[in-house]
Amino acid sequence: MTYPQTARTTSLRAPEKLAYDVAAANAVLDEAHVCHVGYVDDDGLPRVLPTVHARIGDVLYVHGSTGSRAMLGARQDGVDVCVTATLLDGLVYSRSWFHHSANYRSVIAHGKARLVSDPDEKWAALERIVDTFGEGRAAASRAASAKELAQTAVLALPLSEVSVRVRAGGPKDDPEDIGLPYWAGHVPLALTPGAPVVDENVTVAAPAHLARADTTVQA
Amino acid sequence: MTYPQTARTTSLRAPEKLAYDVAAANAVLDEAHVCHVGYVDDDGLPRVLPTVHARIGDVLYVHGSTGSRAMLGARQDGVDVCVTATLLDGLVYSRSWFHHSANYRSVIAHGKARLVSDPDEKWAALERIVDTFGEGRAAASRAASAKELAQTAVLALPLSEVSVRVRAGGPKDDPEDIGLPYWAGHVPLALTPGAPVVDENVTVAAPAHLARADTTVQA
Repeated sequence: MTYPQTARTTSLRAPEKLAYDVAAANAVLDEAHVCHVGYVDDDGLPRVLPTVHARIGDVLYVHGSTGSRAMLGARQDGVDVCVTATLLDGLVYSRSWFHHSANYRSVIAHGKARLVSDPDEKWAALERIVDTFGEGRAAASRAASAKELAQTAVLALPLSEVSVRVRAGGPKDDPEDIGLPYWAGHVPLALTPGAPVVDENVTVAAPAHLARADTTVQA
Repeated sequence: MTYPQTARTTSLRAPEKLAYDVAAANAVLDEAHVCHVGYVDDDGLPRVLPTVHARIGDVLYVHGSTGSRAMLGARQDGVDVCVTATLLDGLVYSRSWFHHSANYRSVIAHGKARLVSDPDEKWAALERIVDTFGEGRAAASRAASAKELAQTAVLALPLSEVSVRVRAGGPKDDPEDIGLPYWAGHVPLALTPGAPVVDENVTVAAPAHLARADTTVQA
C-alpha cells in the first residue's frame, strides 16, 4: 500500500530517495521516540517543536501541553502541521566533501491536525504513547486520571499525505576520485540504551519492557 | 552570555525547562548531527526538513540542495526559519502515565536565513559541516570544486533568538503515587557508533577522526 504523491510530498531534491510505502513510513514512525512538529504561528512564522508521539492505525497522535500555542490553535478548526520523524543511521565519509552524507530514515507527514477532545480517544492515544516506552508499559503503570486527561493535550494527524526518505550504505564518490588517498566508508550509528537507573523507593524489579541495549551494534 | 528572551522564545509550556545560555545552546548545536528546519512554503503551510548543519561563531549554517523550495525562496530576501536540534538522552518511566517523559536537550533558533552567495563563505561553511563528521575530516578529503560549490546551497541563520530546553534525571511522580507497585526510573540513550565499514578500493587505514564508540555508556 502506498500514499498518493502530492505537490508537497514530491521534491526536486534527490527524488530517488523518496518513497510512499505505508509500511515503511509506519516502521519509521513506530521506531522514532521523538518527532518534530512544524506549524505556522499567529505571527505567520514557522515553529518546530520536538515531542513524543504514537501511531494507532492511520492516525498519528502527538503529545503536547494545553499551554502550547499549537494546541490552543487546534481548538478551533484544526491546525496545519508538518510532522517529521528522523532516524539517524550513520555518517558517510566520502573521498570528496561534496559526497559526505548521513544515512537516515525520515518520514514527513502533512495535514490538518485536530485537538483530541473525546476522553476515550485521548486515553487510547496516551496509552499507546506510554507503550512506545516499552510494549506493556501502559499496563505496568498507573493510567491517567480524568484530571490528568484534561491537563494533557493530544493532537491527531490523519496519515494521508506522507513520504519516506531513506539513505543507506556507503559513499557514492565520483569515478575520478576513487584513486585519491583518502579513507572512505561509513560509520553506523544506533541509539543505544544504557543500564536502567532506578528511582528511589522502588520495590519491584526492573521489568522486561524497558528499553534494552542490543547485544551487538549492527554494521 | 545569554540570548534575550522574546515572545517566541518564551513558552507557557514548562518554562522551568527553558534557558537562554549561549554556551549551552552551542553545545547542543555542535553535538547534534541533524537539525530540523521549519519554514512556511508558498502555499502558506509549514514544512519541516531534516538536514546537517554546522556552527561558526554565532552563525548556524544549514546544508540544502539548490533544488529545495526553502533554498529557492531564500534567494530573494531571505526566508523565515525555525531550526530545531534535539538530542534524545533517555526515557523516563514514572509510576503514572502522566509523568512519563523523555530526557533531552533541544535548541530552537528563530530568524531570517539568507542563502550564502559568497563562495568563500560557502567554502568555509562546507568545510565546517564536513568537520562535524570528525574534527580534521575536511583536511582529509577532497575540498569542494567551484562547480560543486555552485551545486550546493547553504543557508546562514544568525543565532540571535535562541532557546534551550533540557530535561534530565529521573521521574517526578506525585507523592501519592510513590508507594505504587510499579518500577520507576530512567534509561539513558546514547547515539553510539558501530565499527567503520570501509568502501571498496580504499588503500589507507581508518583515520582517528571517524566517529567512535565510547568505551562505556554513561548512566
